[in-house]
This record gives sequence, C-alpha cells and structure tokens, in this order.
Amino acid sequence: MPVGFPELPVLHPVSGIRLGTTAAGIRKSNRRDLVLIECIAGTQAAATFTRNRFCAAPVIVAREHLARSSPRALLINTGFANAGTGDEGLRDARVSCDAAARALDVAPESVLPFSTGVIGERLPVDRLIAGLPGTMKALTPAGWSDAAHGIMTTDTRAKASSRQIEIGGKKVNVTGIAKGSGMICPNMATMLAFVATDAHLSRELLDRCVRRAVQSSFNRITVDGDTSTNDACVLLATGTAGAPTITDPTGEDYQHLLATVTDVCADLAQMIVRDGEGATKFVTIDVEGGASDADCDAVARTIAHSPLVKTALFASDPNWGRILAAVGRAPVAALDVDHVAIWLDDVLIVERGARAASYQEADGARAMAKAEFTIRVSLGNGGGRARIWTTDLSHDYVRINAEYRS
Amino acid sequence: MPVGFPELPVLHPVSGIRLGTTAAGIRKSNRRDLVLIECIAGTQAAATFTRNRFCAAPVIVAREHLARSSPRALLINTGFANAGTGDEGLRDARVSCDAAARALDVAPESVLPFSTGVIGERLPVDRLIAGLPGTMKALTPAGWSDAAHGIMTTDTRAKASSRQIEIGGKKVNVTGIAKGSGMICPNMATMLAFVATDAHLSRELLDRCVRRAVQSSFNRITVDGDTSTNDACVLLATGTAGAPTITDPTGEDYQHLLATVTDVCADLAQMIVRDGEGATKFVTIDVEGGASDADCDAVARTIAHSPLVKTALFASDPNWGRILAAVGRAPVAALDVDHVAIWLDDVLIVERGARAASYQEADGARAMAKAEFTIRVSLGNGGGRARIWTTDLSHDYVRINAEYRS
Repeated sequence: MPVGFPELPVLHPVSGIRLGTTAAGIRKSNRRDLVLIECIAGTQAAATFTRNRFCAAPVIVAREHLARSSPRALLINTGFANAGTGDEGLRDARVSCDAAARALDVAPESVLPFSTGVIGERLPVDRLIAGLPGTMKALTPAGWSDAAHGIMTTDTRAKASSRQIEIGGKKVNVTGIAKGSGMICPNMATMLAFVATDAHLSRELLDRCVRRAVQSSFNRITVDGDTSTNDACVLLATGTAGAPTITDPTGEDYQHLLATVTDVCADLAQMIVRDGEGATKFVTIDVEGGASDADCDAVARTIAHSPLVKTALFASDPNWGRILAAVGRAPVAALDVDHVAIWLDDVLIVERGARAASYQEADGARAMAKAEFTIRVSLGNGGGRARIWTTDLSHDYVRINAEYRS
Repeated sequence: MPVGFPELPVLHPVSGIRLGTTAAGIRKSNRRDLVLIECIAGTQAAATFTRNRFCAAPVIVAREHLARSSPRALLINTGFANAGTGDEGLRDARVSCDAAARALDVAPESVLPFSTGVIGERLPVDRLIAGLPGTMKALTPAGWSDAAHGIMTTDTRAKASSRQIEIGGKKVNVTGIAKGSGMICPNMATMLAFVATDAHLSRELLDRCVRRAVQSSFNRITVDGDTSTNDACVLLATGTAGAPTITDPTGEDYQHLLATVTDVCADLAQMIVRDGEGATKFVTIDVEGGASDADCDAVARTIAHSPLVKTALFASDPNWGRILAAVGRAPVAALDVDHVAIWLDDVLIVERGARAASYQEADGARAMAKAEFTIRVSLGNGGGRARIWTTDLSHDYVRINAEYRS
C-alpha cells in the first residue's frame, strides 16, 4: 500500500499539448500501455536522461532526436524497456518513431521514444504500430490523467501534479506525470517523467530549468539504489500561454517558473517514493554539517540504501545502531564521529557519537511507529547539507521483485 | 536454511591455546555467550579491524592492547556489541579486561576484548564478570567447537575450519572459528574470526600473513553491504609446534603457511555467506577484464548489493537485465558497454552489451535454479579481476532483520 499517497489534483491542461492513451496489448492485454503526447509546432524541449552506461535504445534515439529537432510528439510504451537489445533495439526504436511521424505527418526526428518494462527482450513493434491509431483518436488536452495511468508498470498509483501561476499577468500552467516504483535511484535523471508548461522560455533557459528542478526532486529519491537503464525527465514548453518570453535567468519570472516546475517535480518524485515497491514508510533523511553537500549526500544515501536500516524502518524498530553503523561506513573523507548527532523527528538519539543521555527508547519507538518521519544527522563538520526521500524494505518488496516476471 | 553448509571438520587443537565457553546470561539466558581464549606466554598476534568509523569500544581497546603487549587472552561476548556507547563503553571494555587479567594473573593489556550483538546499549559488565569463572573452568585445548558456538548471534551454524601441514618436518596446526550472518561487508577486516597456529613467525610476518589472508577471504564476501562496527580477525601464533621460525617472506615455509591460513579464512568466510541471513543461494561473482582489480571489485560489489539482482537470485529468475543494469551503474571510470559479456555458469547470456544470439531462457533458468552458481562478467577492457561471494535477498532476510530485537 502506498504511504500517504495524495489524491490526484486537478490537472490543468497545458495549451499546445494533447495526450492520447490506448491499450495496445504490448506485453499484457486490456491494460493501457501506449501513450502519445503531441506538442504544437514551436514547442521547446529539454530533458535529462539516465547515467546508467547501459542506457536503453529509446534513450539513445531520444537524445539524438532532441539534439536535431524540436519535438512534435513523445511516444511512450510500457511492457518492455528496449534496453540491452543492441542494434535491433535501436532499429525498433527508430521504426516506432517513423510510424508515429507518418501518422502525425511530422519529421521522424521530431518524435521522441520512451520505453519502460522488462530489460533485454525485444519491443514488439508490430503491436506498438497497430496501437498508434488508438492513441491518435484519443488525443485531447484533457488526457493527462489517462496518460499518467498509461505509463504505469509496477506502480500501484498514477502520478501527476499540476500548478497554475501568473507571468506578466497571463495564466501559465505547469502539469506533469511520472511513473516509477522500483529500480529507483535516479542519477541526473529519473524514471519517466513528462512535465509541460505553456510558458515561453529560451531553449537554454529550459535546459537550465529542467536540470535544476531534477536535481532537487527526482535526484533526491531512492527506493532500492538501482539506477534504471531508461530514466528520463522531459520538460516541454509550448510558449502558447501568451505570457512574455522568459530570457533572464536572474529575473523574477524565471525564478517563479523554476520554483513551480521544481514543486511539480518534487510532487512527482515523492509520489514515486510513496508508491515505492512494498513501501510502508516514507522517510526523509536530512544530513547537515558535512564538509560538503556531496559528503552529506553520500551519508544520506548510505543510510537510505542500508538493508539493515530499511528493515528496521519496516519493523518500526528504533534500532539506531544500524543508522550509526551506516554513517560510519559512508564513503566520505572527513568524518569525526565525536561530533555526530542523530534525531528521529525531534527525538535526539545520538550525541557526540554515542547514545544521547536523554534518550528513552519509548520516544524513539513513538517516532518510528509513524508512517512518515525524518532521520536527521548532524555531522558537525562544516556547512554542507543534503536531503533524500526513501522507503523501507518490506516483505512485499521481496515478493514483488521475486515475482515481477511471473 | 544455510546453503550447502559443510559438516564441521575435525578441529585440530593448537598447542599453546586453550578455550573456555560458558552461558553467562549476558543478553539471553541458557545460551553460550562468553568465550575466553587463553594463549601461552610468547604468543604473537596480528589482527585486522573494521574500517567503520564508528568502531566499537572493544575494537579501540583491542587495538591499544595489541600495540602495547603480546596477548595472553581473548575475551569475547555476544549479546551486546558495545558500539555507539561512548566513554562508558570504553570503560566497560577496560573493566572486563581487568577482571579477566586478574583471573588469569596476567597484565590487563594482554587481554583483548571482542563484542558482538546489539549496537548502542551498554555491556552488562557484572554479568560478564560473573561468567568468567565458568569460562576458566571450561578451558581446554579441545574447546574450539564450543567456542565456535559461543560466539554466534543470528548465525544458525557454528563456523570452524582446521588444517594440518608440515614445516621443517614438524606438524603445524592452523585452526580458526568465525561468526557472522548479517551486517556483513567486511572492509579490511571481517566479522569476528579467531585463527591460531602453533607455527613460529616474526610479528612482522604474522601481520603480513593476516592482511593477505583476510584480503582474499573475508574481504571478498558480502551479505547486505553493511560493514559492521565490530569486525575483527585475529591470527595467533603460539610458536609451540617445535617447527623452525619462519622469517623469510619469499620462502616456501611462509608461502605454505600463508596458503593454509588463507584456506582456513576462506572456509570461514564462505561459511558466513552460506549462513547469511535468509540465504537460499550461494553465488560467486567473478568479474574480469576491467581496467584494474579495483574496477572489477566495484562492478562485482554493485551486482552483489543490488536488491533487484538479489531478489531475482531468490526467485531463481534469470532476469539478467538487472545484472546488466547493475554493471551499467557501477562506479568505474572506464566501461565500454559494447565489450561486456555475462555468463551464468557456462551459459552465455550477454555478448557485446546485449542479449546473446545463442541465449535461450531455459538455459538461464536451469543455471539459476541451482543453489550455487557463478555470475561471470567480462568487461573486455583490461587485465583486472575480482571475485565476490554473496547471497540472495529473501523473505527470511526481511523477517530476520525486522524481528532481530524482538
């Protein structure tokens, strides 16, 4: 069961964007599994992709196309990741783009392909192409919720977020969807996320915006430490809201839009963690006082990835020795254990590297019993800080991942 | 259930060593939990300890004592790790050594303390001291098996190994015991392991011997990636076998002894993995052809620590895309995915970075169905190599670690 998963909000249409979703029977029948996102001519796009060296064929093709053209369509299938499929996989991705381009009467390089699902098996291109007319017929500006469902794999909940702001007196929309539940440890990218706005930005600023937003949202989450081969986050800007063009990265309009895009991305990122495979807890890990932000990040991730910490979270067991042991093995150069303090929410557990004099196990147990809480670590060693959102390791995580392909 | 766990072999006594074990009720009653290992005067000792920065109080005290004196006794308790216990923990470790020293009529700094169990709670020194007469009364050269049982925590099997070799025409014994099942990812050290020989070596050579042996045994295993606060491996040499003193690190005698000590340590290390928490598989990960041994090690550990790979191992599911994704995210500078090949035992699964043309899923499934098999990865990038022994991630791992303190 997802942890504190919010009701999907009203999803504001983004002018210039239409979405169509269908059940193409790509891997399973009677399940929405193919999504087409159509963008108006002139739409700018910026994206971040996985840093896994085994990046999937669609990631390679989407990068190529993005470098050569403005996008007119995004084509997303679930069922098969089209990763580890070699040259045939690249051909399959290109053939899919060609088919969508013909259907929409646009250039093939203006179609960006995305896949998610099982790694290492070929994409059934015939079924994908046969599904295209269904997505075309379904195209509508109100298609965000259907599309959010259409990109799910092991997700139990559709993930979407939306905001409206004003820029130069004009209403501007920012709406996004995402999928992801396992193999979640985005590195400069994320699982699949598609965010669109009708604001108008230079391509350069859009690039900057997506990188900054991803850095403080999708790159702050981990479910299992496994970085996927298919991660991608795309930010589309149609520029059709009639709002003034944003060109100044220090100006108020850019900051406002960046904050809004970041909020939408953070909503989506947290939804991914709340719906993490087998999750029963939503845990924020705040590390501060490290020699650098990178050191704090390394400590936070070592805690977040420790199977012993994660099983203690599942058990609601304030077995803080496991947190302390994780801090102690984190790959950072400077760590003075005598300065380390640890809190569960506001309960001080460790001070000066050892059990706090004031600590009562009942207080720790009370904090851990909650479905959501914060582990705060102070390293007392500098001005760095980092935040990571993560989950526990439960019986259901093992069940889901031992049964995934069956 | 442990995986292919061997019957305990005949444990050859090591002249000059006596072991006594008792149930001191340190954390639970009616359970062997206190071990005294007495060494004859003149015994040399060398040891490796955890690199976790939060090393336990007994680790700090054992290091101090080892630097100042030859050991006359090792005092080992289970139940509490005496880690994260600050100055009080250091005092508790010292008071325990003092008590054992008085009982044996030796200097306090010739007693080395070791603890394993729950982190962050005080050692009940009174109960430990009250248990000392029981260990004294039980002292015997034949006490290895009892001691192997006395140091267990979540272990389901006692771990011991023994070899006899000849040096200079004299029979020399090498016998060792170890404990460990979870929080296993030794780093330049191990869980608790105590190995003794009656060979005669210089202290310098003994140091070298324990480091080399640990490097190719305990440092090659991982259950959950969590490096403990209390890891220690001690090698004792009583020198009482009557064999010639070994002083030449390039000589045959040293190489023979080193190989034997390494064999004993590798036996113990593999026993720890076979008895890993919830283990249903014993998996060897061989990575070759990396730019360096360190790169191969990083790739092997990334595979070994991936929860998705580990749950696929548990499910006997040849979901090799997860192995490929782990290789792709491993923290190595040079990785050419087009050169990567992967085998399950002798089944070629991935060649040139993609599914092998010859691969049939039935072959992969057959390899994975076995309780023991090898994942071999060739990086095609240089002459490095590394081997890691690991286990799967099962329902029982979660159950054991969610229930550990209850």
